[in-house]
Amino acid sequence: MPLRNASRTPLVESVIDQLREAIASGEWPVGSRIPTEPDLVAQLGVGRNTLREAVRALAHLGLLESRQGAGTYVRADSELAGAVRRRLAHAELRDLMEVRRAFEVEAARLAALRRTEEDLVVLRAALRARDEAWDAQDADVFVETDARFHHTVAECAHNRVLAELYADFGVQLRDILHTCVGETVRPEGYLSHTGLVDAIAAGDPDRAATEAARFLRFLPTG
Amino acid sequence: MPLRNASRTPLVESVIDQLREAIASGEWPVGSRIPTEPDLVAQLGVGRNTLREAVRALAHLGLLESRQGAGTYVRADSELAGAVRRRLAHAELRDLMEVRRAFEVEAARLAALRRTEEDLVVLRAALRARDEAWDAQDADVFVETDARFHHTVAECAHNRVLAELYADFGVQLRDILHTCVGETVRPEGYLSHTGLVDAIAAGDPDRAATEAARFLRFLPTG
Repeated sequence: MPLRNASRTPLVESVIDQLREAIASGEWPVGSRIPTEPDLVAQLGVGRNTLREAVRALAHLGLLESRQGAGTYVRADSELAGAVRRRLAHAELRDLMEVRRAFEVEAARLAALRRTEEDLVVLRAALRARDEAWDAQDADVFVETDARFHHTVAECAHNRVLAELYADFGVQLRDILHTCVGETVRPEGYLSHTGLVDAIAAGDPDRAATEAARFLRFLPTG
Repeated sequence: MPLRNASRTPLVESVIDQLREAIASGEWPVGSRIPTEPDLVAQLGVGRNTLREAVRALAHLGLLESRQGAGTYVRADSELAGAVRRRLAHAELRDLMEVRRAFEVEAARLAALRRTEEDLVVLRAALRARDEAWDAQDADVFVETDARFHHTVAECAHNRVLAELYADFGVQLRDILHTCVGETVRPEGYLSHTGLVDAIAAGDPDRAATEAARFLRFLPTG
């Protein structure tokens, strides 16, 4: 898939850059729906075909996704996140969950060694938000707060590469969890994360790693 | 950094696509030096400035790297690998090694659960090549055979996502190891990988994970 296209007009290139800037700046965050086609045509002062070509180019890069009748959504906020997304698009759930475990076990281990007192305050707040979403039985909010909790653990590891790779990866995983959230939010499906937070607070890397691995124990191991 | 550039001529775009194709097809493998500028100018039938602009564009994408007086080298074979490379370019060694441990511990665990008899034949051959390079005290060959050994473990995990992420990541890491190989190849620096292969052959995931983590134990943990 060529990233550059010699047949593209400068006007299309310029629209691509404007849309990309709206995504990179966070004006259109990942997960949000971008303005409608008529709105964008008016806003940018370009023709509908020009806009469509720009949207298609960004969809190719994995940054946008158009859904028939539902609009166009932001799916990734950088080339790297988009490239990861494209590569993971057809991956098996089992494979994704195992890579998730790789990141999370290492993150938990390092968080136990490096977390500051401030980290613990943020981590306990993230744990509380997750538990409250569970109690409210709100599946969408639960998936969001669960993802935020795990990102917070990754931040506590104080490893920039790990946190960034996990962030790129996490967006894709959250998408997938949203689709199977009916299975996730049910009483017997609940996994308390209190033991992980306790192990990180206690500065015990081995126990933190064991706790983190436990969340994915339900995976088929064969 | 814009991936497309409206001011680029169609000829430059076409040269970019031709160079990219030589990389993607494996004609120019990662780590190899591409033909000299005069050779490429003659081969492609374009001007020197056009070629230089195309090489610069691919350097921006992380696929090529020009070294003053030493020629131009292939550094990544895909956009994703290039994007990972760019992101890792200024990463700290400690961070990289910890992410490496995340991948390798999970790969070892899964390899113990899933390796086939054929996998074991390949894995033992990779172990032998690594040991022979060590005995010969050839630093460059040792780094290569060590990397190949670890990639083989990742392949034995039978997880496509893990193997691909590890491959993208591994190229960067091998580059770094080459630069500090003087420290690596010395008698007290040798770490036998026989215990890992034995654990994988025995089908013992916990022992395999412990063995894999052991290789990076020398890292500062604070």
